[in-house]
Amino acid sequence: MNGKHIKEKVYQLLDERAEEYFRYLGEFLHHPSTLGQEESAQQYYAELLQNLGLEVDLWYPQPQDMACNPYFLPCRDDYAGSPDVVGICKGSGGGRSLLLNGHVDVVPAGKNDWEDSPWSGLRKTGRVYGRGSSDMKGGLIANLMAMDAIIKSGIKLKGDVLLASVIGEETGGAGTLSMLSRGYRADGAIVPEPSDLNICPVSLGVIWFRIRVKGLAAHAANAYLGVNAISKATLIIQALDTCNEEKRTRVQHPLYCGDNHNPFNINMGQIHGGTIATSVPDEVVIEGRIAFSPDEDVVDAKKVVEDAVVKAAEQDSWLREHSPEVEWHSFCLNSGQIPTDHPLTTAVCHAYEEVAGEPPVISGTPWGTDAGAMIRVGGIPTVVFGPGPNAKAHQANEYVEEKKLLQVAKVIASTILDWCEVQ
Amino acid sequence: MNGKHIKEKVYQLLDERAEEYFRYLGEFLHHPSTLGQEESAQQYYAELLQNLGLEVDLWYPQPQDMACNPYFLPCRDDYAGSPDVVGICKGSGGGRSLLLNGHVDVVPAGKNDWEDSPWSGLRKTGRVYGRGSSDMKGGLIANLMAMDAIIKSGIKLKGDVLLASVIGEETGGAGTLSMLSRGYRADGAIVPEPSDLNICPVSLGVIWFRIRVKGLAAHAANAYLGVNAISKATLIIQALDTCNEEKRTRVQHPLYCGDNHNPFNINMGQIHGGTIATSVPDEVVIEGRIAFSPDEDVVDAKKVVEDAVVKAAEQDSWLREHSPEVEWHSFCLNSGQIPTDHPLTTAVCHAYEEVAGEPPVISGTPWGTDAGAMIRVGGIPTVVFGPGPNAKAHQANEYVEEKKLLQVAKVIASTILDWCEVQ
Repeated sequence: MNGKHIKEKVYQLLDERAEEYFRYLGEFLHHPSTLGQEESAQQYYAELLQNLGLEVDLWYPQPQDMACNPYFLPCRDDYAGSPDVVGICKGSGGGRSLLLNGHVDVVPAGKNDWEDSPWSGLRKTGRVYGRGSSDMKGGLIANLMAMDAIIKSGIKLKGDVLLASVIGEETGGAGTLSMLSRGYRADGAIVPEPSDLNICPVSLGVIWFRIRVKGLAAHAANAYLGVNAISKATLIIQALDTCNEEKRTRVQHPLYCGDNHNPFNINMGQIHGGTIATSVPDEVVIEGRIAFSPDEDVVDAKKVVEDAVVKAAEQDSWLREHSPEVEWHSFCLNSGQIPTDHPLTTAVCHAYEEVAGEPPVISGTPWGTDAGAMIRVGGIPTVVFGPGPNAKAHQANEYVEEKKLLQVAKVIASTILDWCEVQ
Repeated sequence: MNGKHIKEKVYQLLDERAEEYFRYLGEFLHHPSTLGQEESAQQYYAELLQNLGLEVDLWYPQPQDMACNPYFLPCRDDYAGSPDVVGICKGSGGGRSLLLNGHVDVVPAGKNDWEDSPWSGLRKTGRVYGRGSSDMKGGLIANLMAMDAIIKSGIKLKGDVLLASVIGEETGGAGTLSMLSRGYRADGAIVPEPSDLNICPVSLGVIWFRIRVKGLAAHAANAYLGVNAISKATLIIQALDTCNEEKRTRVQHPLYCGDNHNPFNINMGQIHGGTIATSVPDEVVIEGRIAFSPDEDVVDAKKVVEDAVVKAAEQDSWLREHSPEVEWHSFCLNSGQIPTDHPLTTAVCHAYEEVAGEPPVISGTPWGTDAGAMIRVGGIPTVVFGPGPNAKAHQANEYVEEKKLLQVAKVIASTILDWCEVQ
């Protein structure tokens, strides 16, 4: 068979076996793999890998695994109930290796505005519904489908293919760091996050902050003896708003040029302080996150927020003496990028054009992904490309379109064949 | 016996019987009479009233009792577990009546920074310790002591004396309103709140507010589609601060001229909003209270806050279309005053000078009290005068000094004798 015939056979097999895999996705979604609850979903994925005849490695991340990324911010002390899984398809040698990485953890289902159970895995009108369908169990299934079709076509590859299902991406990427610490590397990687078929050689970074603005407690009747932390917090809030408008909008990147004029913004997401109407509150806590460009890194991002806070505090006699504390906590996904003309980007784009019959949209991801650590810590050129609609990620009634899932599986299969080479 | 001899006999009896009453106070403090839990404390007080031979009325307030005060803000739907108690000492006729009113409810014990149990009633170094000792079970015991000494001296009064132990003052005065609805009135009243021996013919008012500042939710990655309620809240906070500094400091009252340059301030005590760092929050809630001068009333006070919010909202295109909501909730104690040369004020001052050998300090209360409703709703001239140190009210290790408690009992006894007249 020549290359064209091989691919046609693979695409045909994918078409034939798609139904079976959509059912698998439904079953996969029955496992509510929220933080700390990933075990049964991982066992299910490991079984599918084994059914393909792959060698399967399942292990429990250890806190020290994360030391490879000095910017990692842990949100938990141990990873009981949260194994990582890698399936290995050894090539015959001489080809480039490819890692297909996806995260199995999902965000909580949220409020009761789901039409069906968030864990239903229900299929209707060409979609599969459920928490994680778009972000990103659909992507994990697409990885499997691609490999399944290649194996079932009797094709032998030169390069290795690794299929990883990792935990903890939604809380900062512990699973991918553990995978890297365990020594897994490849010459390229695809992460099928819900990019809506956009090809993203670029991921922005995200880090969470907590700012404690101090006041001085007093009874409201003696408010003159206190310092109201709510009033002082306005100085910090306005400083961050000013920074957003005056500085962050100036951070530009060619792959972030859509409607959003400020993708690398500071977002204040939560505020709380004080205990009762009749006391002067002595602390207000502002929680938020800053997104940063692939041209920035974690250190730059931290400095943006810290400088804004210090500068605001300097303008106020109380805050000058009682500096607000900036804490970085719970979540940090570093930014990362490879060139748009990198061989991997080119390979995925080429495969896309072949499958879709039109040129791809190339863009940056609007959120942090494991790609940042894979590029910066693992040295693995990585592209984000997946079926799920971005707009439904983390929402009620999350879904993935079956047609797009199949399309992504074909693009990944095609990329594997070109990148790893047929023996 | 002439007036002087009568009083000397009463003072002597008070000195002799003080120990017994300090023990009663200790026992009284064993009953943790927080909101909804006042029953056993009230039964204890009713028993002490009965032991004095008084006619005792114990009843359960009903929500409709509060209708006499249109500004009352309920914090509960029913008053099970929270009876009011009044002891009645009928005079022979022809004298003025006097109501001795105190609240039995106490604020929660708070955090664990008490040296002994908050409910210990422990006596040491001339003090009685426990939640409510200063605010204001000490005062309630002083009322009893005064009446006890008069009765035990064999004195017959012309005017009636009423001893009331009411619930709900710490949450807006339901108990006193129920007492007024039940028809209890007098020609004068003393409320032994912790005024630290100051004589207060004036009480300021206090009302609680909740301001909801609306935003528009969005994912932080698409912050440009949302409106951050935290940022918008700064406009309201700063408007209230400006109102405090520019307007509220101009509200003056001759009995509020101590260190506190702004006793009638707006205090923002709490703020909260948003759910997670990665979302644009769609609401921030600011909770607080405004204190108001006896020359203002509830309507004036509400207008101060509402006008400041409306004016701030008008300056902002988003808030102009999405007006912050001001809600008045949970707590309202109206202000109230009688002249410093009112016969009742004069009577208490005269008694004080007689007992203490020095002129009293006359001032306004730094907090709201039941005196506001007694004056405005009940038409009862009322003076606040009590033993407890203001500084320890609502604090850990709250105490009352036995010496001052005895002194207050003497002043009250002396006032009763002069005001109600001996037969």
